[in-house]
Amino acid sequence: MNLILLSPTDFAPGSLSSNSPLPSNTPEPAPIIARLEDRRFQHIAEVHRAQVGDTMKVGLINGDIGDGEVIERGERHITLKVSLHRSPPPGLPLTLLLALPRPKMLKRTIQHATALGVKKLYLINAYRVEKSYWQSPWLAEDKLREQCLLGLEQAVDTAMPQIELRKRFKPFVEDELPELARDSLKLVAHPVTTSACPIDIQQQTTLAVGPEGGFIPYEVEKLQEAGFESVHLGPRILRVETALPVLLSRLFPAS
Amino acid sequence: MNLILLSPTDFAPGSLSSNSPLPSNTPEPAPIIARLEDRRFQHIAEVHRAQVGDTMKVGLINGDIGDGEVIERGERHITLKVSLHRSPPPGLPLTLLLALPRPKMLKRTIQHATALGVKKLYLINAYRVEKSYWQSPWLAEDKLREQCLLGLEQAVDTAMPQIELRKRFKPFVEDELPELARDSLKLVAHPVTTSACPIDIQQQTTLAVGPEGGFIPYEVEKLQEAGFESVHLGPRILRVETALPVLLSRLFPAS
Repeated sequence: MNLILLSPTDFAPGSLSSNSPLPSNTPEPAPIIARLEDRRFQHIAEVHRAQVGDTMKVGLINGDIGDGEVIERGERHITLKVSLHRSPPPGLPLTLLLALPRPKMLKRTIQHATALGVKKLYLINAYRVEKSYWQSPWLAEDKLREQCLLGLEQAVDTAMPQIELRKRFKPFVEDELPELARDSLKLVAHPVTTSACPIDIQQQTTLAVGPEGGFIPYEVEKLQEAGFESVHLGPRILRVETALPVLLSRLFPAS
Repeated sequence: MNLILLSPTDFAPGSLSSNSPLPSNTPEPAPIIARLEDRRFQHIAEVHRAQVGDTMKVGLINGDIGDGEVIERGERHITLKVSLHRSPPPGLPLTLLLALPRPKMLKRTIQHATALGVKKLYLINAYRVEKSYWQSPWLAEDKLREQCLLGLEQAVDTAMPQIELRKRFKPFVEDELPELARDSLKLVAHPVTTSACPIDIQQQTTLAVGPEGGFIPYEVEKLQEAGFESVHLGPRILRVETALPVLLSRLFPAS
């Protein structure tokens, strides 16, 4: 937890309006008071071992980043005086289409993708996605959000990714994808191709990543019909959790 | 398991000499017979569901890659006719110095590093490496080898990485590292610096990666004294298991 993430409900009534997270016309942001009781309190108490007067990095979910000063430490809560003064790092100019990974990998993959700056993620079906994966309790909205929070806390970011589930490949690719990917560079990671993954592009991109074992030829064809170009990562076959950081860090410069 | 990895002991006596894994003076490699009984047999039987006549990708540890044809399938063993005819993908021109990760992460990190093509890995101590990590049973030679095998099987590679453990930071950096890193590009991944990680270099490289929380300033200084330049990956703080694929895929082109 490199960042304590706060939500509007953590703040004392009146100290933060969820509509206007920061008074925009004051040169110095006004301090706001947050009270934490959950795992964040435990982390601050047990890992930071923070005492009154200590400060730590905090951020408002979908808002700015700044400092939190401990102004009170109780048995089961901690009170922070919060000052937010800088923007989170920019997200990637990317829409990621990811064949739903097996449940064991799903959590890690969501965390990694979030930590790497993915802001739009479609978990999609593919022939080699086992049907049972769609029954995973980890696909519930609150569970996905938990993994995103872990990724944001890790990467010192506040902007929550938006995750969509699409359980049918064909209608998604035929009906929804053309509009979704319009005007973007369209790439599908596919080992069997001659084009290497491009590097440090500046463009808005839509990237499709298949399941373990890859997209089947029919799926690659459907994506190609939708304007996607196949790119490879070299002769090594990588797990999705390794391929994803490799793809994203080759495509986009560390800003 | 994208590759069935064979060792000399799998082969029928006389079919393969461990000193000369391939007859070098014949244009067509002679077929060799391997008998498998362990988890590889189970994988071939249960995942491939291979029958007599089926072929699959096989490789000889530290040797070539080719095909294995099932010529016999028993209740508890399988016999392959093996023909090896191409080299494994090249390894990275890299010596990786990695602060020992926590045991939970160690296994995955070894697998990922191996899959990405790391061939020389030093697991080193650092201030933020907890002493207890050095007690992990996963540091035993056979356990490390197991994780390497998993990484090679994943990436369709045969060349076993060489892993060394160095439990004392200062003597390692002062006495051993200068010779080890001689004539290589020397980099240390460190968030607090102005130089971004270089991209697609062709040079032999020595890369130091710190523990969770990073190297402490003293350690960065010692590395700088040894000629290491600090490079960062952008504003996001990444877990070692994410940072490693990011670093390696930016430094080296997918060959």
